[in-house]
Amino acid sequence: MATGEKAEAKGFGQSLADKVSDFPGWYNDVVMRAELAEDAPVRGCMTVRPYGYAIWENARDELDRRFKETDVVNAAFPLLIPKSFLLKEAEHVEGFAPEVAWVTIGGDEELAEPLAIRPTSEAIIGPIYARWIQSYRDLPVLINQWANVMRWEKRPRLFLRTTEFWWQEGHTAHATLDEGEERTLQMLEVYRSFLENELAIPVIAGLKSESQKFPGALRTYTVEAMMGDGKALQAGTSHNLGDHFARAYDITFLDENNTLQYAWTTSWGMSTRIVGAVIMVHGDQQGLILPPHVAPYQVVIVPIWRKDEQKAEVMAAVNRASAALKAAGIRIKVDATEAKSPGWKFNEWELKGVPLRIELGPRDVENNSVVLARRDNRAKASVSMDELSQRVPELLEEIQKALFDRALDFRQANTLHATTYDALKASIEQRQFVDVFWCGDPVCEERIKAETKATNRCMPLDQPGDSGPCVLCGAVSDKHWIFARAY
Amino acid sequence: MATGEKAEAKGFGQSLADKVSDFPGWYNDVVMRAELAEDAPVRGCMTVRPYGYAIWENARDELDRRFKETDVVNAAFPLLIPKSFLLKEAEHVEGFAPEVAWVTIGGDEELAEPLAIRPTSEAIIGPIYARWIQSYRDLPVLINQWANVMRWEKRPRLFLRTTEFWWQEGHTAHATLDEGEERTLQMLEVYRSFLENELAIPVIAGLKSESQKFPGALRTYTVEAMMGDGKALQAGTSHNLGDHFARAYDITFLDENNTLQYAWTTSWGMSTRIVGAVIMVHGDQQGLILPPHVAPYQVVIVPIWRKDEQKAEVMAAVNRASAALKAAGIRIKVDATEAKSPGWKFNEWELKGVPLRIELGPRDVENNSVVLARRDNRAKASVSMDELSQRVPELLEEIQKALFDRALDFRQANTLHATTYDALKASIEQRQFVDVFWCGDPVCEERIKAETKATNRCMPLDQPGDSGPCVLCGAVSDKHWIFARAY
Repeated sequence: MATGEKAEAKGFGQSLADKVSDFPGWYNDVVMRAELAEDAPVRGCMTVRPYGYAIWENARDELDRRFKETDVVNAAFPLLIPKSFLLKEAEHVEGFAPEVAWVTIGGDEELAEPLAIRPTSEAIIGPIYARWIQSYRDLPVLINQWANVMRWEKRPRLFLRTTEFWWQEGHTAHATLDEGEERTLQMLEVYRSFLENELAIPVIAGLKSESQKFPGALRTYTVEAMMGDGKALQAGTSHNLGDHFARAYDITFLDENNTLQYAWTTSWGMSTRIVGAVIMVHGDQQGLILPPHVAPYQVVIVPIWRKDEQKAEVMAAVNRASAALKAAGIRIKVDATEAKSPGWKFNEWELKGVPLRIELGPRDVENNSVVLARRDNRAKASVSMDELSQRVPELLEEIQKALFDRALDFRQANTLHATTYDALKASIEQRQFVDVFWCGDPVCEERIKAETKATNRCMPLDQPGDSGPCVLCGAVSDKHWIFARAY
Repeated sequence: MATGEKAEAKGFGQSLADKVSDFPGWYNDVVMRAELAEDAPVRGCMTVRPYGYAIWENARDELDRRFKETDVVNAAFPLLIPKSFLLKEAEHVEGFAPEVAWVTIGGDEELAEPLAIRPTSEAIIGPIYARWIQSYRDLPVLINQWANVMRWEKRPRLFLRTTEFWWQEGHTAHATLDEGEERTLQMLEVYRSFLENELAIPVIAGLKSESQKFPGALRTYTVEAMMGDGKALQAGTSHNLGDHFARAYDITFLDENNTLQYAWTTSWGMSTRIVGAVIMVHGDQQGLILPPHVAPYQVVIVPIWRKDEQKAEVMAAVNRASAALKAAGIRIKVDATEAKSPGWKFNEWELKGVPLRIELGPRDVENNSVVLARRDNRAKASVSMDELSQRVPELLEEIQKALFDRALDFRQANTLHATTYDALKASIEQRQFVDVFWCGDPVCEERIKAETKATNRCMPLDQPGDSGPCVLCGAVSDKHWIFARAY
């Protein structure tokens, strides 16, 4: 392939844009060169290529398993939402209407009422739940769907912000506000645990300010992660919708005393955006670094020989290693093509972020061993073939943990508590998370945003319990908030 | 729940429409009452409810596993197709344009070019493959996507024919026509094996006639199943697209001699329609009967007690049984609610088609046994608690096989070889599959359709090798074809 050969000539690593001086260019290079995704022929949309999709599939399966552990079940709701439905919740329509794609013609006929392609599904699920829910015995309803949604994007970026994207959206209904709040926080915790344990991305779980919450929500909780350039990325959100949507869509039930009540609903979503987060949190100048838990291939085996007569014995050892690891449940790729050199393959699989590489040549065969090369810290070690199926799973867990620790160290090193507005501004200029006391007044929040381009990310759930003056106006507050520039 | 109580009063079975005299009414009752799906608030669209979706999920996971065994990988392609793309393959656009939903407004602006919601994705994947494929080294491309698609339906029926539906569509590209044909038949075989082994639905694998093939295809292969009313349902199709789409979308590659060649493509799809097939093939007057391999719950345990003091020992035994079966990998539902009687639960879970019911009361506890009741033939047997985790998996496999055998017997009993046109007409009136010699002339095919409402289903791949006169015109043919009324 022409691209590959050119890259080999130049050296693979050098051919990516410089991660430090041009983070956006580096990001785009990684996405394209690792064949994760690309711009679709439809403006603002993306094609998720097989390698990128395999990361998403692994993440999705694990997240789905975690949802089901909390008694959530899956279903499929319609793609299209009649315009009149979308108009029913005032804040919701205000937030989403400008981004909607409209179907106006169906089967050669002009439609009497335009249909929105769902930007999110509260407005179609509301009326459906209104029919399903009649009695307190029908509650709670705990349903998720895996779906594509569409929000017209003026400035699309692969994975991070595209007109069409893929996500899950959970929608629950409850008999009380307390139960709704409990579920909202329970799903936030599922997101936190999933991101930290599976994607090795440390997050700050917190509450969004009024200005940043989901249109129509009572309260929005978020998990915020720091990317490799110090910017924040909202990796998932969980909304307590109060009775706002129940009132808009008439979701009512007869309680145990036969009194008609509005239900209390929640919604929570996580999208293909997390693939972008994995790239930006863990990647380096050589390309992608994938957390072992979601890597399509956890190990790549590269056979090495110089003379033809070495090939048979090397390949026999490769097949033994591959079989042993497959039996241990490891996702393996054997790259035995002869069209490429081992060196080319090393670069290629480093670019693609495979956590562990096994190099296996004639000398290794002689010693009944293999060379294990870690992607994260590039450490190499020789390991006996007999210990392989025990050592590889251990090493993968070490890598998983090392990635998390490195990301956490990075975030901690780049988070500053600012007590003055000047300190806040300086930190934001250095692309840091800034922890401040904020009085809660939207005027202060808006001025910070206008002057520094930093947005209010969240009020961390984990609060030290002290108090101090608002970083801008000086009014005393007992709440820490995180401000940062964000994706 | 009001519906449930009313049904109990009437007796559950009686409350479904009569399967013999009103098959469509029975089908609709089963779909609604078993809470599989319902009409969405958007005309022609459906909501797949959690219980119906769980059947689809199990089927999907198994099909996905089988695809991956043949080296197919998943990806995600855009929902929207620019109008100009759809117009490029003449037969294709003629076939699909009348059914398309068009997006004409995006983000508050009238679009310069209308965008079709994909009715199928050849027209968007073609241009994408054209960019990915440059050299013979890029081939084959073997990609599948799980997606929603949309075809505007005038007469929607839940699962069988809805405006939006969910499916998988595989799209492959090859260096030669032969390789494309081989892949087309390979995927047909995946479908056959999946339907027969997982859904217990016997199928006839065959070739579609020219008039029945996919718009734009060179050849379409199909798997045809007989429903409980004798009508045919096309359960999956696999298309050899020849170089038709490669020419339309300019999918070319440099071969080993550096000569530019058109690629050879295939596509193949199976949809949520198969859930409808499961209902119509296996269901009876009491409701759904699910093949154990895809049943959301393979076993339901209903505890039974009369006096409060019996409850503790019964529930202890239920928990032991449930734990043993879960450990054996069985999907279990324990229905311990006290709001409903055991008899009500028996009816409810029979309606929902759970393959095996475990009844567990005080006498069973005394005997260290349980009662196993099969859904398919209603046979009951007492089994020792100690043998449960061995006996249940065996029984589930017996049920799986019995369902297949029963469906095959039914199809064979309702398939006739007709040598005269009168015999064909009589068989069609009796809702049978009719096996005939057909000369291959579309005029004969069209007249049969116009006069009997039976369509040409396929030429079975499995041919006896004899010959005889065309059932209509008498011209000698050596090919058997199946005609039937169809969904």
